[in-house]
Amino acid sequence: MKAHRWVVAARPTGFDVAASLALEEVDVAGPGPGEFLVRTTYLRAAAPMFKVLVSGSADGRPPTPIGDPVVGAGIATVVESDHPDFPVGTDVTGSFPWQDVVRSNGRSLVPVQPILLPHGVPLTAPLHVLGGPGLSAWFGLTEFADAKLGDTIVVSTAAGAVGAIVCQLAKLQGCRVVGITSSRDKADWLVGELGIDGAVAYRTEDVAARLRELCPDGIDVYFDNVGGDTLDIVLQQLAVGARVVLCGASSQYDRGAADWQGPTHYFELVYKQATMRGFYIFNFVSRFPEGRLRLTELISAGKLRSPEDVVDGFENAPAAFERVLAGRNLGVQLIRIGQQ
Amino acid sequence: MKAHRWVVAARPTGFDVAASLALEEVDVAGPGPGEFLVRTTYLRAAAPMFKVLVSGSADGRPPTPIGDPVVGAGIATVVESDHPDFPVGTDVTGSFPWQDVVRSNGRSLVPVQPILLPHGVPLTAPLHVLGGPGLSAWFGLTEFADAKLGDTIVVSTAAGAVGAIVCQLAKLQGCRVVGITSSRDKADWLVGELGIDGAVAYRTEDVAARLRELCPDGIDVYFDNVGGDTLDIVLQQLAVGARVVLCGASSQYDRGAADWQGPTHYFELVYKQATMRGFYIFNFVSRFPEGRLRLTELISAGKLRSPEDVVDGFENAPAAFERVLAGRNLGVQLIRIGQQ
Repeated sequence: MKAHRWVVAARPTGFDVAASLALEEVDVAGPGPGEFLVRTTYLRAAAPMFKVLVSGSADGRPPTPIGDPVVGAGIATVVESDHPDFPVGTDVTGSFPWQDVVRSNGRSLVPVQPILLPHGVPLTAPLHVLGGPGLSAWFGLTEFADAKLGDTIVVSTAAGAVGAIVCQLAKLQGCRVVGITSSRDKADWLVGELGIDGAVAYRTEDVAARLRELCPDGIDVYFDNVGGDTLDIVLQQLAVGARVVLCGASSQYDRGAADWQGPTHYFELVYKQATMRGFYIFNFVSRFPEGRLRLTELISAGKLRSPEDVVDGFENAPAAFERVLAGRNLGVQLIRIGQQ
Repeated sequence: MKAHRWVVAARPTGFDVAASLALEEVDVAGPGPGEFLVRTTYLRAAAPMFKVLVSGSADGRPPTPIGDPVVGAGIATVVESDHPDFPVGTDVTGSFPWQDVVRSNGRSLVPVQPILLPHGVPLTAPLHVLGGPGLSAWFGLTEFADAKLGDTIVVSTAAGAVGAIVCQLAKLQGCRVVGITSSRDKADWLVGELGIDGAVAYRTEDVAARLRELCPDGIDVYFDNVGGDTLDIVLQQLAVGARVVLCGASSQYDRGAADWQGPTHYFELVYKQATMRGFYIFNFVSRFPEGRLRLTELISAGKLRSPEDVVDGFENAPAAFERVLAGRNLGVQLIRIGQQ
């Protein structure tokens, strides 16, 4: 069977990643014993995947070799099978190449349905609220932010896959929530639809001045997904005893490790007796079921939404990737691949 | 009475602070009712005092105005008095100008003796082990480092006023202690005299390579007094779950706040799920008696030493200041002012 895949044609040097990717046609043989073929239905584009292309993964693996496919989370349907646990028609999820038809032995893939028992949870939930983004929001906030009733929490990339969930969870636990997002449209959506208390549009507004207006008593918690100038601005407005939770640094993922922009104002941590903590979500694998259960309860109760930003067509995957790197997505960035 | 004082003649632009100070002669009137005159016997030179001259204090006060005297901790003897609580002969300590004779109403000064009851504690202890350096070491380590038995802790400016005490306290609580100091002589002194497990001489050794040798399983706790490149080197060698305690940043005190060198490798906090915490010692004022009690017990038991590096002569105060800014001191940097 002919399949198509997006490979790394050149090492990306900036956020215009599409120029570094190439579409290849490959032959995929039918499944041998213990194998099956899947047809990909959804892929996720996320900023940390770009870091993997530029400088390697958070756990120290080198960058994706030139010529290898982009790898990310996806959902697929089994279309041919010689594996008893993955009959034809099974929806599976896990990490696999950006390829429309894939042969697998089932390693690193799991059926979708068992984690979607309650009503109201969409098939795509493993790519966002029940996957890495939702679990990063859950464990990042509950284990590292020490957010108290009435605290003011600022969330960057607030309308992104992680940020939108952090915003809602923080509201549910009684915090004042202020988001930072790219545009006024998304800022209005965050306040009007997700119900947060204020939002700053960084493309058109003075972030420092607007944060001072929205957080007059200082920032108790900062959930950081971007790094760069935004991190420095927030550091200068921390309340005494503040906690900065480092989740992502999407503004820096196009740089080699030695060229990152460190926070010039890191010594505000001394002046404000504050804490900056990083977390690595895969340290929590054994607790993922617990996190998924809590998140599922909130979704089923109608208290938590996980917005999806869907681009159609496998051929548009690089454009979707650039969309998320430019911060134009609202919610998780998905690529939907129609049946051919 | 004629007195002499060191004033800020120009805003310092580098660590050669002596060029920015000038010696003035001033008249000091005799004490009025409720006042007394002291003759200064010891002054302390410390790196954070330099930050106050360049960019202001940690609690947000502006830099010392041009023409005003340098201010720091000192010890003095009452030589004339019209104040019932400060009779002639009393040794007092507190924060006062770099001036050899000072008139005071007693505000911000306390008699030395009440905090020196046990044997074995020197008159100068309020300037180091029972003052800011000792209390920073005590509360920084006990409240913010979460140092466990067997942890490897790295201490920068390990032979300085704070560092030398942190090194000893960490040894007493069962840690492996590795110091970073300027010279091989001081490194040998740290290992041979203070009994720590290893020391790196940054002027002549490759700090990153030596730390990898001395901390093969990574660094569990970093007690940072310098910032700059050293902080970045240590961040790249953290163990999983490490704690970085920010106490000082002596390499950066010659810079305006917007020009500090932030840690390029701050995202190691994510990769290693590590924590960076600052603390501000004056938040612990109500607990200073508790800290002094514990430190005094250790001194009296012969378990804790607080080395003094003494320069003689009020006229040599700027040279002593430069000595500490260049990291040439071993222990607290004192200026001893002889009776005239």
